[in-house]
Amino acid sequence: MATIAHEKVGRTTDRIFNFGAGPAVLPVPVLEEARRDLLSLPGAGMSILEISHRSKAFEEILHAAIADIRRLASIPSSYRILFLQGGASLQFSMVPMNLLPEDGSADYIVTGAWSKKAVKEAQKSGMVSIAASTEADGFTRIPEQSELRLDPEARYVHITTNNTIFGTEWHREPSVGMVPLVADASSDIFSRPIDVSRYALIYAGAQKNLGPAGATLVILREDLLERIPKGLPTMLDYRTHAEGNSLYNTPPVFAIYLIRLVAKWMLAEGGLEAIGRRNEEKATMLYDALDRSGGFYRPHAKPGSRSNMNVTFRLPSEDLENQFLSEAGKHGFSGLKGHRSVGGIRASIYNAFPVAGVEALVGYLKEFASRNG
Amino acid sequence: MATIAHEKVGRTTDRIFNFGAGPAVLPVPVLEEARRDLLSLPGAGMSILEISHRSKAFEEILHAAIADIRRLASIPSSYRILFLQGGASLQFSMVPMNLLPEDGSADYIVTGAWSKKAVKEAQKSGMVSIAASTEADGFTRIPEQSELRLDPEARYVHITTNNTIFGTEWHREPSVGMVPLVADASSDIFSRPIDVSRYALIYAGAQKNLGPAGATLVILREDLLERIPKGLPTMLDYRTHAEGNSLYNTPPVFAIYLIRLVAKWMLAEGGLEAIGRRNEEKATMLYDALDRSGGFYRPHAKPGSRSNMNVTFRLPSEDLENQFLSEAGKHGFSGLKGHRSVGGIRASIYNAFPVAGVEALVGYLKEFASRNG
Repeated sequence: MATIAHEKVGRTTDRIFNFGAGPAVLPVPVLEEARRDLLSLPGAGMSILEISHRSKAFEEILHAAIADIRRLASIPSSYRILFLQGGASLQFSMVPMNLLPEDGSADYIVTGAWSKKAVKEAQKSGMVSIAASTEADGFTRIPEQSELRLDPEARYVHITTNNTIFGTEWHREPSVGMVPLVADASSDIFSRPIDVSRYALIYAGAQKNLGPAGATLVILREDLLERIPKGLPTMLDYRTHAEGNSLYNTPPVFAIYLIRLVAKWMLAEGGLEAIGRRNEEKATMLYDALDRSGGFYRPHAKPGSRSNMNVTFRLPSEDLENQFLSEAGKHGFSGLKGHRSVGGIRASIYNAFPVAGVEALVGYLKEFASRNG
Repeated sequence: MATIAHEKVGRTTDRIFNFGAGPAVLPVPVLEEARRDLLSLPGAGMSILEISHRSKAFEEILHAAIADIRRLASIPSSYRILFLQGGASLQFSMVPMNLLPEDGSADYIVTGAWSKKAVKEAQKSGMVSIAASTEADGFTRIPEQSELRLDPEARYVHITTNNTIFGTEWHREPSVGMVPLVADASSDIFSRPIDVSRYALIYAGAQKNLGPAGATLVILREDLLERIPKGLPTMLDYRTHAEGNSLYNTPPVFAIYLIRLVAKWMLAEGGLEAIGRRNEEKATMLYDALDRSGGFYRPHAKPGSRSNMNVTFRLPSEDLENQFLSEAGKHGFSGLKGHRSVGGIRASIYNAFPVAGVEALVGYLKEFASRNG
């Protein structure tokens, strides 16, 4: 396996460039701090893996995580910031269980496989109306505002802000009037500035831009709590976690600790403006290389809908794709295989993915095309 | 803060003796291996915190975790071993959602606060019959077989094998005939040999004897899968996780990795026989010190029901308890405060809690009693 000297490690490690779609690359300074303190958290006398969630040390970590995330995205005080478990997949059920009564209807905008899974779970709670779907176009794009058939009486409108499999991303929120906008932002949360006030509820599995697998961030406008029916399973009721400040039961302590370190890193990097600029630069470098390949590389997503997080593309043949992937491994690139439902190549370049890795991939793209074009 | 030289670290660290009830102490060799590989898992080129749950490296870890747990507890092949999220608290709901139809009834044996929470969630699914409760006795004991009012038509019988708050533990399973026995074993799982074939379903939050917070072990007899109603939320249906081998969605990768290291450690320590002997020795040392204090220390649990995991006791007055706790901190002991609902002192001495820590506490118990008795 080819290895690289990572710019921030300051020494040669056996770390490679991880283009995986998630769980995904984390900032090296975060990993180094976690490593340094893994046997004994300073002042606590024990590992973060052993510490009580009721301890003062962990309460400080939890409060810092919430405060840093609030500051990072300028989240208004009328929103609660919660750390749950079960990933976006459990949110697919929790959102309708909490917000979609049997006699109500919700609008879902379908832009990929994850949207469809969200629809399937919502249909178990109440009525679902597909306000738009780009499935007929192979999910190559995000729908235009004019295509949305929105119900002004809908309990909420649900979107998937970024579609990892198809490489598409909403670049601005749909206009939904007074209807609450609910977003699965698992794969592009905090990748750029976000106006949280446009949303009623945002949820995100941590394992792309926030931290390790095992925690789910939920940002929830407080007035939604009043709409929740009685009698839900306690752990599936947002009120439980809002009232308990994510401490109703034992939370995923270590994942929250790492999310706090990642939030601190994002602030130190200059916040979402700076991170958004860098993500735009990284994605532009890659899309430019694809667009300038004379048709050798064919991006899956249409311009205007392209994701800054997951760059998906095809080569002239599956044989060439397999060759591309096989040689990529020798260059120290990992995780470039596209999702089986789409095929081809997928380069996931989340917040913590280094510019140097994108530059290296661009070099490989050019070299491979010139050799095989 | 007083610190100790830990026998297995081989150097003075600032680790203290962690008597916390959970999350709780982990084996030092496990922490050291996790620390060593935190930046780059050997052969993977990335951190375990960044690795894809679909990668070969993680599949090997998952399979090893399952295989080691199966070997450790001699779990028959007719049982599935699953890693879920949400802790025992979510299992309180998942068990009845999967196994208790609206027109069915389940028997719950109530031995403490966690049993009561399990009852509350089950009542949202179907009928619950309290087959026995020791609440009138202050939960100082486990009921006798003769006290159980078991319904032969019950869908299952639910027990809490160990009660962290009250310091009681089932030392043998109740006889329940052909009715499936379901156990919340969060706080004493794998603390001694277990005959899994006596149970239909065992669940346990990881954060006491298995690993860090953020994963839930479920051991499930396969025939139960056939009883599950259709239409459950996908993530709350045991079939989803059985069919997906805990990989339906992104699992808590790091927690499973640590559980695998803990399982390996338990096997290296000699398996459940050896671990059970050591736990018995540790608990006996503590209970003997309490019983021989001439009434200065009063254990909460009655003999025969005493927990080997959580030793709970009172002192002659709350003032003395506060003094005991305050001075314990100076000795490098942490987490000894009893649960607020019971008061007093609680020493949690899970599998990874070192004998040296129990010896140190016994010394302190004697010294404190002779000074204040």
